[in-house]
Amino acid sequence: MTNQIMVKMALDAWNSQIKNGDDLLEKLSDEQLMTEVAPGRNRGIYLVGHLVAVHDRMLPLLGLGEQLYPQLNEPFLKNPDNAKAAMPSVKELRQFWKNINSTLADHFSKMQSDAWFQKHTSVSAEDFAKEPHRNKLNTILSRTSHLSNHLGQLVFLKK
Amino acid sequence: MTNQIMVKMALDAWNSQIKNGDDLLEKLSDEQLMTEVAPGRNRGIYLVGHLVAVHDRMLPLLGLGEQLYPQLNEPFLKNPDNAKAAMPSVKELRQFWKNINSTLADHFSKMQSDAWFQKHTSVSAEDFAKEPHRNKLNTILSRTSHLSNHLGQLVFLKK
Repeated sequence: MTNQIMVKMALDAWNSQIKNGDDLLEKLSDEQLMTEVAPGRNRGIYLVGHLVAVHDRMLPLLGLGEQLYPQLNEPFLKNPDNAKAAMPSVKELRQFWKNINSTLADHFSKMQSDAWFQKHTSVSAEDFAKEPHRNKLNTILSRTSHLSNHLGQLVFLKK
Repeated sequence: MTNQIMVKMALDAWNSQIKNGDDLLEKLSDEQLMTEVAPGRNRGIYLVGHLVAVHDRMLPLLGLGEQLYPQLNEPFLKNPDNAKAAMPSVKELRQFWKNINSTLADHFSKMQSDAWFQKHTSVSAEDFAKEPHRNKLNTILSRTSHLSNHLGQLVFLKK
């Protein structure tokens, strides 16, 4: 019972930030997303691609399958924003954003509460035995903070 | 046992963002904090005061006592940033930031795991019976997102 409550708490917090992202992206035009969120800082397109790539990597991290968009790792994870880098269009990234988040939501809806307290794939069995908090649900907490951090920046694109 | 793990997960996530805030504030000068984080957006001083006020209100929310700095509610919670409003100095706010966060940490270190799953003070007993996820630990998750969101903005003051 308590496990169920905890899973709901963490997923509610995650879903609330995803909803904030959905709402914000609806308000921003493709043109706005091509501009820097602040002078000399990342462009909107980079932050959206970065968030999609980080969420996409949650699939292998949680043992839910392969990445859907491995082509995003190079421009949005391994490199800083670069207007000359090959990138999908904002329209494509909007679609990827919707798709990766709904794919994750589908998987999450099928996971039993206890499964969330199992180890994720980047921690060894030995370390997990000593540090049982390094479980799948913990990755939701850290990814929620990550998302919230970048949404605080993307919001600056709003007029 | 699982309760303990979940409390550790949530407090680790919170402490990690507090540490990010500590590190960032050390790198920013008082002068930098008097400037806007992006053109036409909040000044650093406002975001710091806002975070202190929100953290301060966690004391009554969690049933841990009265606010230490109720004088911050007016300029940092009830009103938007305003260069003409009466505000403490950046130096004072730095001290308040340290003090409220260490006060909370002291309280948290004394709380038993089960206490985190009790209701906070803004939910009624009737609602809590139906929605047991509206507990004290849940407020840590939401405040962690809030902190992370604004730290993503404050970081723009770095040169």
